[in-house]
Amino acid sequence: MRAGFYQFKPLFGKVDRNLQKVISVLRDVDADLIVLPELAFTGYTFLNRREVMQHAEDPARSTTVDSLAALCREKNFYLVTGFAEKSKDKCFNSSLLIGPGGLMHLYRKLHLFNTEKNCFDEGDIELQVNSIGDVRIGMMICFDWVFAEVSRSLALQGADIICHPSNLVLSYCQQSMLTRSLENRVFSITANRTGLEKRPQGELKFTGRSQIVAPDGDLLFRAASQRETLHIMEIDPRRAHDKSITALNDVLGDRRPEFYSILTQREEV
Amino acid sequence: MRAGFYQFKPLFGKVDRNLQKVISVLRDVDADLIVLPELAFTGYTFLNRREVMQHAEDPARSTTVDSLAALCREKNFYLVTGFAEKSKDKCFNSSLLIGPGGLMHLYRKLHLFNTEKNCFDEGDIELQVNSIGDVRIGMMICFDWVFAEVSRSLALQGADIICHPSNLVLSYCQQSMLTRSLENRVFSITANRTGLEKRPQGELKFTGRSQIVAPDGDLLFRAASQRETLHIMEIDPRRAHDKSITALNDVLGDRRPEFYSILTQREEV
Repeated sequence: MRAGFYQFKPLFGKVDRNLQKVISVLRDVDADLIVLPELAFTGYTFLNRREVMQHAEDPARSTTVDSLAALCREKNFYLVTGFAEKSKDKCFNSSLLIGPGGLMHLYRKLHLFNTEKNCFDEGDIELQVNSIGDVRIGMMICFDWVFAEVSRSLALQGADIICHPSNLVLSYCQQSMLTRSLENRVFSITANRTGLEKRPQGELKFTGRSQIVAPDGDLLFRAASQRETLHIMEIDPRRAHDKSITALNDVLGDRRPEFYSILTQREEV
Repeated sequence: MRAGFYQFKPLFGKVDRNLQKVISVLRDVDADLIVLPELAFTGYTFLNRREVMQHAEDPARSTTVDSLAALCREKNFYLVTGFAEKSKDKCFNSSLLIGPGGLMHLYRKLHLFNTEKNCFDEGDIELQVNSIGDVRIGMMICFDWVFAEVSRSLALQGADIICHPSNLVLSYCQQSMLTRSLENRVFSITANRTGLEKRPQGELKFTGRSQIVAPDGDLLFRAASQRETLHIMEIDPRRAHDKSITALNDVLGDRRPEFYSILTQREEV
């Protein structure tokens, strides 16, 4: 399949302008799966929850989602994109899987980063893998990468490709995602954004370097830090079916879950 | 505290000679904690289980353990070392924590690598952290690194330092251990061996590059690939008490264990 990402700089609060830019770039692309950054249409650096609620959309009544679904239908491809989601009185830092048939799945970021905690509600739905044709897609968002539990949970559900919309500001993630791919024998596509976002409360510079990693931890492609980059490449998702790391070792089959019980214990407060 | 590793080349089957070498090197060292490689006294490339049984020892009746305990008493330090363990009719690829008071804890490798599966029994005891003074020590062995569940389980038990006796032959581990330290905010000391081990069934070359990593993922020291190296350095284990990665994020406190349930489910066969 032809899969990749579009790394760009969303303009804060300019949802329609960002949407038109994405559509105009992707309209000429030959691809099966394209991953976009976290909060790709709203921008990132919200002042507070009220500001999120001004820009967030209910995906069931969203011009953005409808337009992206029309694009997927027209182009016969799938998109994974970050999305500021409004759900009644809550708002989530979400990721959408959209295909020719419309919105297929929504994931709500489980591990909020820094001041996102002041702006968004914590994700409240289970990690889930979805099929597009024969290929199984898992989604996680940006800071979720720190928690090996997330990518592992997706791999255990059979994910071939972990789609990873991001707005990264720290320097650790790109290198660590090689380990995430390797330890789970899955592809990962990290779609980061570029640029400096200046808001009244300060500014953030995003680190770009979006990348595609193979199941053996090989970096297949990495973008530059501050250049808008569309990169689509041929990958064979069936490579992620082979979980062997030696002739006698399988990174999932060799697990010893009976010794991991502390991982799912709730904290005693 | 002063902590580090001794990277060397054990001679296959020469338990006493390897022991005397280790003792002669460590006798002059000023340290609090020293990590030795996996199977540090027997060598690695066993033909079969019978050959393991010929060289393995019951730690309760072991000249090797008694000698190391005497050394710890004399030097007032602690050792973590790989050890071929015989236990009745079973044998394990184990790691020992030995201090001035003798053997403190024994860990049996949970995830056997490649043909180790033909030679050793799978580890059968829980992951556990032990205190030496105020410092909490976790042990894992070599290939356990692939399974993020192991280091996480130790970190959740409060490990400040993950001691990691290794006989690495693949190229992935050293870089990935930076992620293991970072994602858990713990020190890690990977003590690998060097050299080529030739046996009738073939030969293996070990990758050296033993290392010490800080809780922020910084590589504090890495040895060369094929040079025997003793490296002891001052580290402050209290740094591992700080689990924050931003002002509002804590790599353990931010976990959402209610969403990780698949991690401890047994496989349906």
